[in-house]
Amino acid sequence: MTERFIAAVVQQAIPGNDKRANLAATLQYVREAAAGGARLVVLQELHATRYFCQTEDTACFDLAEPLDGETFMACAAVAAELDIVLVMSGFEKRAPGLYHNTAQVIDGNRGRVGIFRKMHIPDDPAFYEKFYFTPGDATAAALNGFQPIQTRAGKLGVLVCWDQWYPEAARLMALAGADMLIYPTAIGWNPPDDAAEKNRQRDAWVTIQRAHAVANGLPVLVANRCGHEPSPQAGDPGIEFWGHSFIAGPQGEILAQADAEGQGPLCATVDLQRSEDVRRIWPYFRDRRVDAYANLTRRWLDGN
Amino acid sequence: MTERFIAAVVQQAIPGNDKRANLAATLQYVREAAAGGARLVVLQELHATRYFCQTEDTACFDLAEPLDGETFMACAAVAAELDIVLVMSGFEKRAPGLYHNTAQVIDGNRGRVGIFRKMHIPDDPAFYEKFYFTPGDATAAALNGFQPIQTRAGKLGVLVCWDQWYPEAARLMALAGADMLIYPTAIGWNPPDDAAEKNRQRDAWVTIQRAHAVANGLPVLVANRCGHEPSPQAGDPGIEFWGHSFIAGPQGEILAQADAEGQGPLCATVDLQRSEDVRRIWPYFRDRRVDAYANLTRRWLDGN
Repeated sequence: MTERFIAAVVQQAIPGNDKRANLAATLQYVREAAAGGARLVVLQELHATRYFCQTEDTACFDLAEPLDGETFMACAAVAAELDIVLVMSGFEKRAPGLYHNTAQVIDGNRGRVGIFRKMHIPDDPAFYEKFYFTPGDATAAALNGFQPIQTRAGKLGVLVCWDQWYPEAARLMALAGADMLIYPTAIGWNPPDDAAEKNRQRDAWVTIQRAHAVANGLPVLVANRCGHEPSPQAGDPGIEFWGHSFIAGPQGEILAQADAEGQGPLCATVDLQRSEDVRRIWPYFRDRRVDAYANLTRRWLDGN
Repeated sequence: MTERFIAAVVQQAIPGNDKRANLAATLQYVREAAAGGARLVVLQELHATRYFCQTEDTACFDLAEPLDGETFMACAAVAAELDIVLVMSGFEKRAPGLYHNTAQVIDGNRGRVGIFRKMHIPDDPAFYEKFYFTPGDATAAALNGFQPIQTRAGKLGVLVCWDQWYPEAARLMALAGADMLIYPTAIGWNPPDDAAEKNRQRDAWVTIQRAHAVANGLPVLVANRCGHEPSPQAGDPGIEFWGHSFIAGPQGEILAQADAEGQGPLCATVDLQRSEDVRRIWPYFRDRRVDAYANLTRRWLDGN
């Protein structure tokens, strides 16, 4: 494993549900990243299709694939050819009626070295994910689902989108030895919201993920979708995905950040030795009050 | 309890260990805040004295006071007179050889309504706190030490300085019903560090506390010390306390922020109805995976 290398996150607008066309664009960006020296490339959430969770539609389950589906096979071929670590994200059909939002990690010609099934599932107007995605298994996998994945580009703490709002998820990955946190995501604005509200939302999203870097002394890589996607529902304004993919260092410092609309790979040098240095001056792991955290497994501390 | 009110944090440079002089300046700032309409005023960490933890010196234990010491009595008198909620912070002598870093909450003429003993204790060059402060009790107090304090200005999740780096502490206070988080703090730079490192450190500190607001959907109030304090140790550059006290709303948005050097009260309107509104659109508490968080009570997940 190298300590210092170039990593990339790919930000993309998705014009429709033609998976092959979408994937062709994605893999072209992956090639560009690799040509720029990237040894680790992270794709955005559900990159093969539009964000189909704007409505609850049983026909959308047809977009799902098994782990070894065509999207994975195409990604695995390119990762092997380029000899890179590639984090992809897709709609997984695990069994009839059992679907997940799943990231897969491919390490060159070793193929798939691990998966992560999104643990925290949102459900809000235009983000009806609880209809589509079964939450990741808490007990079937090792470490209650929060299992970092060892690659030649470090041990990757892969989480997905809504997981990004939970300090617990970031911490559990760090405690399990993750060298960095990785978030494929698909988040955007409700177009009618005013500019102040939009800025607060995007800033909150950047802030909490930078804070995971700070709290855990490790880099954070975030690949977000961009572009407007209309809703299938008449009169609905759709979602304006806000882009702003970024890579932060272990003090939460921004190393690279995309704007709201730019497509393609965003690169930065990740230095794992820097994490060691930062953790020596701010040794948070030393002082955690593990004797006093038991209530974190409770829903609410109201005695009921 | 009012839902919407003015709150203030007081930022101050401390010229020496003359407690009465320091307290006179502090209480003048408290009066200014109250005159401006503040119903809740938060003081910085260990405001009665210089930050004495730059070295390990047994003589400094003489600076400690019991809970009902002169600093508390002076604060309680002013809080009662002004009919405000006042969060003070001091060096507590609990028993011979048993000292804490303790915040006390005074609610007008009701006097002390609760205390919080700093749970996470740092120990780094120039911040030798493990010598002076016994960590807060995990079991003696209710809720393992993370017990919010009910006042007429809301239920206050009071934490102290190093606690601010721990998402666990913020979350436990929120789960116990805190309406806002409050951090008296004393953090600063090592003067020889370069400007880039200083900015990364201060930004990390702002970022992680704003993130506690985001993760928990509540306001965060931070009172930090400012000014340079020399070290008793010859040749040591001392600490340049970085100020930048701030008040953030429940999306982590900055409502008011001081600069590095300004002294006095910083005010903003806290609106607890806004927390309710924010939690409805970003309902993180609904989706916490309490079934999968048990490992948060472990030191490190290496099997040893």
